[in-house]
Amino acid sequence: MDPMADGAMAEQKARAAAWFEQLRDRIIAAVETLEEGPAAGADGIAPGRFALRRTRRHAPEGEDAGGGTMALLRGGRVVEKMGIGVSTVHGRLGAAAQAAMAARVPGVAEDARFWASGISLVCHPRNPHVPAVHLNTRMFWTPSAWWFGGGTDLNPAIEYPEDTAHFHATLRAALAPWPGEYDRQKAWADDYFFIPHRGRARGVGGIFLDDRNSGDWEADFALIRAIGEAFLPAWLPLAQARAAQPWDEADRTRQLVHRGLYAEFNLVWDRGTKFGLASGHDAEAVLMSLPPLAMWP
Amino acid sequence: MDPMADGAMAEQKARAAAWFEQLRDRIIAAVETLEEGPAAGADGIAPGRFALRRTRRHAPEGEDAGGGTMALLRGGRVVEKMGIGVSTVHGRLGAAAQAAMAARVPGVAEDARFWASGISLVCHPRNPHVPAVHLNTRMFWTPSAWWFGGGTDLNPAIEYPEDTAHFHATLRAALAPWPGEYDRQKAWADDYFFIPHRGRARGVGGIFLDDRNSGDWEADFALIRAIGEAFLPAWLPLAQARAAQPWDEADRTRQLVHRGLYAEFNLVWDRGTKFGLASGHDAEAVLMSLPPLAMWP
Repeated sequence: MDPMADGAMAEQKARAAAWFEQLRDRIIAAVETLEEGPAAGADGIAPGRFALRRTRRHAPEGEDAGGGTMALLRGGRVVEKMGIGVSTVHGRLGAAAQAAMAARVPGVAEDARFWASGISLVCHPRNPHVPAVHLNTRMFWTPSAWWFGGGTDLNPAIEYPEDTAHFHATLRAALAPWPGEYDRQKAWADDYFFIPHRGRARGVGGIFLDDRNSGDWEADFALIRAIGEAFLPAWLPLAQARAAQPWDEADRTRQLVHRGLYAEFNLVWDRGTKFGLASGHDAEAVLMSLPPLAMWP
Repeated sequence: MDPMADGAMAEQKARAAAWFEQLRDRIIAAVETLEEGPAAGADGIAPGRFALRRTRRHAPEGEDAGGGTMALLRGGRVVEKMGIGVSTVHGRLGAAAQAAMAARVPGVAEDARFWASGISLVCHPRNPHVPAVHLNTRMFWTPSAWWFGGGTDLNPAIEYPEDTAHFHATLRAALAPWPGEYDRQKAWADDYFFIPHRGRARGVGGIFLDDRNSGDWEADFALIRAIGEAFLPAWLPLAQARAAQPWDEADRTRQLVHRGLYAEFNLVWDRGTKFGLASGHDAEAVLMSLPPLAMWP
């Protein structure tokens, strides 16, 4: 089955899917340049490079269900592990996913077909002063509805108020053409990136939205592009500056414990992880977000 | 509210709760003795000792909801981290837990009161040749039903068929007075201790049972005691022997990656973890099962 077979919104789907790949390529280029720069505690380590591999969604019925690529950088000078997944998948929702989505999306109860494309990245830096970061944007389609979703949030092991301020100011500026949108998405992120069983936020927040369908696909796609394009200016300067800052074993321990919280959030609460595991996407790709090393002392 | 306030099965509840504490004390004594013995790669490390702290269940309504103790050994010669939680909690099930349980237990839909007592332990050894292990047994009570549940399973990072054989043979012998019980519980463990998204078992199995109510509380309590009493003979000789075996960095990496799978199972699939986090029990106590250090390379 061709993902565009039914023709509905074929052009929009193709444009969204292509844009997620372009964004991935720009981020890869920027991070590989970052790897060439100063990095405290990285003497003797070569600049990291991304390796790409194909990923497949495994549909229960065995038919073609789409897939994507996973770009993974391991053991770099600045980046200890960073995964960027881009995938375009389609098929029929499993019973559990269908039931969960039918509560939000009219029509899904009657027709379980879906198509989804998106980019998802998580960066776990080596230097504990460099903040970990997450970005995810996607387009979702069912025969009765389409919508965009996504967000980005900063997860420093050691918090610097000026870094948090820069990250948020950049996102606020990127969303300025949409009045009220930054405030709404920041509040949504504060609510979403929260670890209930720990009674705390997983990081210092960011922006988040889901179910975005204003009725104007072009306008909503522009909003999603603005979020994706804000990612590098929001995070990269922080990474460049903090990568040169010396760190010690106590900093490292704080980082590993903080990563434990990150793993807890992703495995217990994250909507994308749950959907990915439940819908049969490549587990290695879904779980590339997990930290290279984490501690529960 | 006194956990025995309604008087129903007060003597049985008290005996079960007391027995879980006795089992905990015996295991602590045995592991602290194990810590005095040979341990490869532990030069200069002092024998570990358990530290006990009180844990509380936090009921939404703020009333006394029971609690327990968490015994934690960190950074020992043989044991890198081992937690043994014993708790006796009571109150009313939250809406989600009530709905989930009502499907299995008639009467829960009408009356959400519950009482539960149990022991739960996980051991993450330092030496990658020593198998990690888990034990959990509990009594659960609602106004309309009581039952026992639990199990134990072996989680070696590096598998030795003779260790697996000893573990299973000891459990089989312990359950010999209950014809068919070992085979039934082994099959249940194979089904339960499985990581669907990885398509693999989390370890080399063991035994598992839930909803045990034969109508004869004394007989079922005896079965649960037999499982608890089999734990030390099943695992301790393996730990003693393997702790003396030299290990290297490659062994350590295998261990840390295997621990990542263990964390995934507990955070994504484990019934006890989900119940604990959803019912407001101390998150540190519920998550003491997480490995001290884990790797997702």
